[in-house]
Amino acid sequence: YGRFGLDYRADRGLPNGPGGAVTDSKTQVNMRMRLNIDASTETDSGVTFGGRFRLQSSTNSNATATSAALLYATYAGMRMEVGNTNNAFDTAKLVYNSEMGYLDRSFGDPITVGAAYSSSTGVANTMGIFASYNFGAGSVRVSWKTPDQTTNASVDEEVQISADYAFGQFTVSGVYSDNTGGLARKDYFIGAEYAVNSDINVGLLHFRGKPDGGASQNRTTLYGNYSMGAITYRGYVAHDNSMTLPFQTKTAFGLGLDYDLGGARLGADIHRSYDKETVAGLGVRFDF
Amino acid sequence: YGRFGLDYRADRGLPNGPGGAVTDSKTQVNMRMRLNIDASTETDSGVTFGGRFRLQSSTNSNATATSAALLYATYAGMRMEVGNTNNAFDTAKLVYNSEMGYLDRSFGDPITVGAAYSSSTGVANTMGIFASYNFGAGSVRVSWKTPDQTTNASVDEEVQISADYAFGQFTVSGVYSDNTGGLARKDYFIGAEYAVNSDINVGLLHFRGKPDGGASQNRTTLYGNYSMGAITYRGYVAHDNSMTLPFQTKTAFGLGLDYDLGGARLGADIHRSYDKETVAGLGVRFDF
Amino acid sequence: YGRFGLDYRADRGLPNGPGGAVTDSKTQVNMRMRLNIDASTETDSGVTFGGRFRLQSSTNSNATATSAALLYATYAGMRMEVGNTNNAFDTAKLVYNSEMGYLDRSFGDPITVGAAYSSSTGVANTMGIFASYNFGAGSVRVSWKTPDQTTNASVDEEVQISADYAFGQFTVSGVYSDNTGGLARKDYFIGAEYAVNSDINVGLLHFRGKPDGGASQNRTTLYGNYSMGAITYRGYVAHDNSMTLPFQTKTAFGLGLDYDLGGARLGADIHRSYDKETVAGLGVRFDF
Repeated sequence: YGRFGLDYRADRGLPNGPGGAVTDSKTQVNMRMRLNIDASTETDSGVTFGGRFRLQSSTNSNATATSAALLYATYAGMRMEVGNTNNAFDTAKLVYNSEMGYLDRSFGDPITVGAAYSSSTGVANTMGIFASYNFGAGSVRVSWKTPDQTTNASVDEEVQISADYAFGQFTVSGVYSDNTGGLARKDYFIGAEYAVNSDINVGLLHFRGKPDGGASQNRTTLYGNYSMGAITYRGYVAHDNSMTLPFQTKTAFGLGLDYDLGGARLGADIHRSYDKETVAGLGVRFDF
Repeated sequence: YGRFGLDYRADRGLPNGPGGAVTDSKTQVNMRMRLNIDASTETDSGVTFGGRFRLQSSTNSNATATSAALLYATYAGMRMEVGNTNNAFDTAKLVYNSEMGYLDRSFGDPITVGAAYSSSTGVANTMGIFASYNFGAGSVRVSWKTPDQTTNASVDEEVQISADYAFGQFTVSGVYSDNTGGLARKDYFIGAEYAVNSDINVGLLHFRGKPDGGASQNRTTLYGNYSMGAITYRGYVAHDNSMTLPFQTKTAFGLGLDYDLGGARLGADIHRSYDKETVAGLGVRFDF
Repeated sequence: YGRFGLDYRADRGLPNGPGGAVTDSKTQVNMRMRLNIDASTETDSGVTFGGRFRLQSSTNSNATATSAALLYATYAGMRMEVGNTNNAFDTAKLVYNSEMGYLDRSFGDPITVGAAYSSSTGVANTMGIFASYNFGAGSVRVSWKTPDQTTNASVDEEVQISADYAFGQFTVSGVYSDNTGGLARKDYFIGAEYAVNSDINVGLLHFRGKPDGGASQNRTTLYGNYSMGAITYRGYVAHDNSMTLPFQTKTAFGLGLDYDLGGARLGADIHRSYDKETVAGLGVRFDF
């Protein structure tokens, strides 16, 4: 896909909190071009084998990055991946549903999803395995990712499991993650979305992250969106109990608006962050 | 496209002027493979959004370079680009028309065109915006490129404007460029080409570059070409007032010959440079 | 193509011979995704001009490598390459025929084939030229590759010639290589394969390498394979006279089994190496 637009951050380049010299441009042009290169083949028995790597160029980078490859096999609703794999948290339903704007961002996003598919140069010796199964209205996923498969020494290997199910107008989704991102921590997610009608959705997400031997972080996000013809209005409020520094607030929120260009999307978004910074964007996003 | 052939430089590796040990090969194999990866989508209203990056591998490089991406939107004759953009000088008509051979080179080329589309790894934080409008027989272009969009500090941002128009057998083209290539300088171009008939063209180009607070450099190029069946003869004479070192001459010239292979092109070229060096090439160029 | 599976090495990470701490994983996941990007055009007279570069991502690498480009021209049975070329040894028939498993490996492989097509970042200033001619049942190839085309200084340029011919059930192939891989050495190969019937092949390969002023190394490989429906059994025994260290053996062997999935291939292989190490693999290989 491609996307470009203006990105405004009131405190860009400033240290969080008061003080600091302002030498950074508050408003910058933001862009990204991402191309997945996929290749696959199907055996006579119906198993599909394939692979993917990604070429991605983002704002302020001077070249196009190439990711490591993912190889997969699919059969009926089953899918198995090896290499630079997706993980169960990143692919779970609902977790990103409070995002808005051409940059698809929200302060109600997960605290961390861990070692998802790496879009650019990653870490050598990483190896992941991912499996998912889709059945009608639901799906389950498990993923395993080790930061270094070449050693016998003890490393924190990420293990995740996620599941979701849709019954009628309700969709529910949950994730459990151990050693998220190869760190000694545990993460949980539970969320639900309700489709009031075909134009209105509301959802409630709860993320909880706990470093081993540390205090837990809880983030709760309430969001909703409303479509009226080509326009979709979006909004969210997120509460995070760990934002306790003097210049911070525990509540962030954002408002957004999408305008459907029929093949592309014009998006505007404005947020107030946990650092009481105003962040705004206006741009276009399109899929090739 | 792809191209390969032999490239001879009489003084390769020698310091300009007399003296120096000759350890470099005068004749080398020269090759390049360039592939633009384009992707685009069109909205219902007829606006096309797209992106491009380039994979290029040239002689003596050990890998294929990936460029940063360019994103664009086009509608009717209008085109807008953002990112690793073209600039108005590089895309102006006539400026490269004295080139010849499979390497498309000439000593009558522009002194500099500034920050054109970067084929390989560029400079981080660069951001460009380009707009053009084509109307029947003419076109106008403006471009802006900053070497660092992340800072508020004063940087020399390149701003260019170019226009061209064809009336009957005449084509005229002009460029004004401020801070060309992010340097404190100004550049001008004016040129005209006359199609004597369908087989013969002659043109006169004038380039002027002036660093702020320095002396100006003037280069004037007279060129012509003549097609006879599959063969095209080419020639140019270029005069540059800044070539005043003892071993230099103010006048360079070149002769070339293209043979159309019907889908590819065999090209031969021989030049005498401003450094009184003989440069020659013989090779094939083809477009995928 | 893509391939993935498990790779077991009994002594992985151990120094050859006795001793050493075992900290490396004996069993690792091995994978590779390779994509050749080809582009070509054909002239009216039937000459095809084209180019190729390769994107490849292998196990434990953190990105996808881009190779330098190869440009080629083909006409009838003739083919000429320039750039990151193939060489005559690597493309000779039979040389790799004792390989097995999803990783296509064998200890009866050539001692070295020299500077073959480089799949990833290579060495700057390298330049190769390759020519081949196919006529009915046989083919001949010559290749030249210099590690640095920019210098006049004396460098060891690889020159290779290979030929093969099939008469009836017999195929014979031979290679002579001077300065293999840019080193001061000579290499020879001669091999023959006999197709007992459409399901059974046996072959005998002999490789000889001799560094200038050093002792020669001789490797002889006897191999056979037998297809029964979707299953192909493979085996080889290889003898190398240079494996004389205390912990080594002069004889290596391997057994393998391919199962045809109709578009992909499941392969198992187990070997005993010259270092008396057990090496085994199980995985899938498929071509896009």
